[in-house]
Parts: sequence; C-alpha cells; structure tokens
Amino acid sequence: MLHKLEKKSLVEQVYSQIEEMIKRGVWEIGDRLPTEAELMAQFGVSRNTLREAIRALAHVGLLEVKQGDGTFVLTTSELNAVLQKRIQSAAVLEILEVRHALDREAVSLACLRRTEEDLAEMEKFRDLCFQYTTENNLEKFVESDWQLHQAITAASYNPLLIDMYAHLFEEIQISITSTTEMNDASAAGHNDLILAIRNQDAASAVHCVDMYISHFKQIILP
Amino acid sequence: MLHKLEKKSLVEQVYSQIEEMIKRGVWEIGDRLPTEAELMAQFGVSRNTLREAIRALAHVGLLEVKQGDGTFVLTTSELNAVLQKRIQSAAVLEILEVRHALDREAVSLACLRRTEEDLAEMEKFRDLCFQYTTENNLEKFVESDWQLHQAITAASYNPLLIDMYAHLFEEIQISITSTTEMNDASAAGHNDLILAIRNQDAASAVHCVDMYISHFKQIILP
Repeated sequence: MLHKLEKKSLVEQVYSQIEEMIKRGVWEIGDRLPTEAELMAQFGVSRNTLREAIRALAHVGLLEVKQGDGTFVLTTSELNAVLQKRIQSAAVLEILEVRHALDREAVSLACLRRTEEDLAEMEKFRDLCFQYTTENNLEKFVESDWQLHQAITAASYNPLLIDMYAHLFEEIQISITSTTEMNDASAAGHNDLILAIRNQDAASAVHCVDMYISHFKQIILP
Repeated sequence: MLHKLEKKSLVEQVYSQIEEMIKRGVWEIGDRLPTEAELMAQFGVSRNTLREAIRALAHVGLLEVKQGDGTFVLTTSELNAVLQKRIQSAAVLEILEVRHALDREAVSLACLRRTEEDLAEMEKFRDLCFQYTTENNLEKFVESDWQLHQAITAASYNPLLIDMYAHLFEEIQISITSTTEMNDASAAGHNDLILAIRNQDAASAVHCVDMYISHFKQIILP
C-alpha cells in the first residue's frame, strides 16, 4: 500500500513537471515531446509512471498522443485545456456575455495600473490593425486585434484574469471578426479605448467595451 | 496499434461517463463510488481501463482515491476542479477582481431575464440571511449568503457564467465573510440588490455590486 502511494505521488510529480515545462515554454504548442527513453532519464522514473502521467495530461487535453508518431503539446495549461473543452459546448452569446464581464474589469484595472510600456504595446498593435485594414488583410488584422486586447488585459496585472482571458476567447474573437467588415470604425474604437486607458478614465474605457460588445451582439443576434 | 487506439477511446468514454454521472448528481460530492467490480460490470470494461479512467479523473481533481478506503467525489466538474486548483495559487485581490467582473455581468443579465420564481428564490435566501444574522449563526449566514449569490447568478441564464461562478468563489466567499461582522448592513444590501433586479434596474444592481466588492476590498487591503 505504501508502494502504491509513492507511485501515485511520482506520477503526480511528473504530471506537474511536464505542465510546468509547457507553461515556461520549454515545449511550445505543436512541439513533439522527447522520446520516452529521454523523458524517463530526465525525470528518473519508470516507463509505467511516465506513461501514466502522459496519458493523464492527454485526458485533460494538454497533450495529444499520436500513435506511431509521438506526443505533442496541444495547449499551455490545464486551465486553458479545460476552458477550451468547456467553451466548445457553449453558445456564442454565452461566451460574449462572459467576455463582456472580463473586458470591462480588464480595462478598468488597466486604467489604474497601465505603464508607459503597456501603452506603447497597445499602440503598436493598434497601428498594425490600422495597417492591415488599409492592406485589406483580414487574417493579419484579426491576429493584431487579438494581440491588442491581450495587451490591454496584461495591463490589468491580474494573473488570474489574464489566464482566464488568454485562451477563453481566441476562437470566438476570430469567428466574430471574420463575419464583420474590416473598417475604419474599429480603428477609431481602438483609438478611443487606448486614449481612455492613457487618461485613466475608466468610465470612458468601459463605455468603449460596451460599444464593441453591443456591436458584436448585433452581428450574432437575429 | 489498433488495439491501443481502441483502449484509449474506451478510457476516454469511461472518463466522460463518470464525469457526466457526477454532473447529473448520480454521485454527489463526498460520495464513495461503487466497487471496481460493480463499475467494471456497469461500463462493461476491464479493470485496467477502469483504473486508468479513475486515475485520470483523480489527476484532474474530480475524484480522490483513498487507498484501502475507496474512491470519493471531490467536485462536480472538470472545469470546477481545475479552477479550484488554479484559485489556490491566486491572491485574494486577484480573485475578488474576477468576481467583481462576473458579479456585475450576472446582476445585469438577471435584471433582463429573472422570473418570479427566481425572485422568490432570492428572497428565500435573503430571509435566511436575516434570520441567521439575528440568531448570530455565522456559519449558516455564510451558507445562505452564498446560496443567494448563486440564485442571482442562476437568473442570468448563462450556463458558462453559472459554471465559472459556482465553485470559483466558494472558498473566497467564506474566508472573507468570516473576517467580517455579520450585521444588518448586509441584509440591507441584499434588499437593495434584489429590489433592483425586480425593477430590472441594471444601473442600481451594478451599483450594489460595486458597493459590496469595495467593502470586501477594504477588509483585505492594508
């Protein structure tokens, strides 16, 4: 019985270490993990222990085991993996309402805590959005728009909020934006939002959020 | 190789079925699962397949395997389990800011969608809060207060929001309230909030949320 307890704890340790290495970016999304022999040596564990940890990580959705090919990284944390699974069964309006909640809090906190570096980061992605709009490059626009919203959320300096945000809305962002025309309106909205954050004017920043969420809702609702 | 693929998929099926049965309340938090022999018969799988599924559920945090005692239900869904693990490493202020975001959205949506039944449910828990305040029963007050906030969130009719809320804040709610004095102020706050939701007055409802979150922040901040 003692042996079983020890084994459970070893699997748990390997599970956490692999999750930690993915989080730290040692292995990135899409990367193939080293061979079983290398991992066994690295963690100093048996094949059974290693396999059990990897299978558990695959069940959660962090890793994908492709038989005969290898084990690949699917996402960067347990929370992301589970949120993504949960999101797949949610309706677009549901997700948009949760996004509304988190966006309002993120911009309010960003108004309090943003640094000059944060503002420069936001302005960089705003400029890219503007550039891709003029170049009519929808794919690149969507990417920069998402990076702008992540830069704003980063300026909230709330790690839990940043974590919940990071992978919760990636899919919905893309699916909504691709049904919208790219136009100067969004660039203007970005300007107003960044200006409000620069001026530490939370009421105006929240108003900008209310505007684009309401715009999204009009697109998806009949 | 084909055999391995089949086995993986069987484990996955048992994993999902057990999660589903916990979600549906067939097995509740704290319950001991049936014996291995019974579960093997129920799912029509081998001991190895069953054990792998249970170990994976234990890794995620949904089940706890107590050697020599049995397997117990720890929480009701994969998302809850992972959120709870994530919450343990978050600071109280972080959690409170995320709660602020979700509470504001929940009361705004409840203003739009609440039914008479929802209001009756809220009033039931408000009355219990009042009763336990007069009886000076902190433990029961905390429980009823939490049930009131869950009743409000339920009236948002947003399943994703309800899921994220349900187990994300249970611990923090209790740890904050136990450091606060129970007093009529909270009962008055409850009245204002429920009245705002009854009147479908989102601005007043959000104001109530801002008030109690700001009260919580004063308690935890130096």
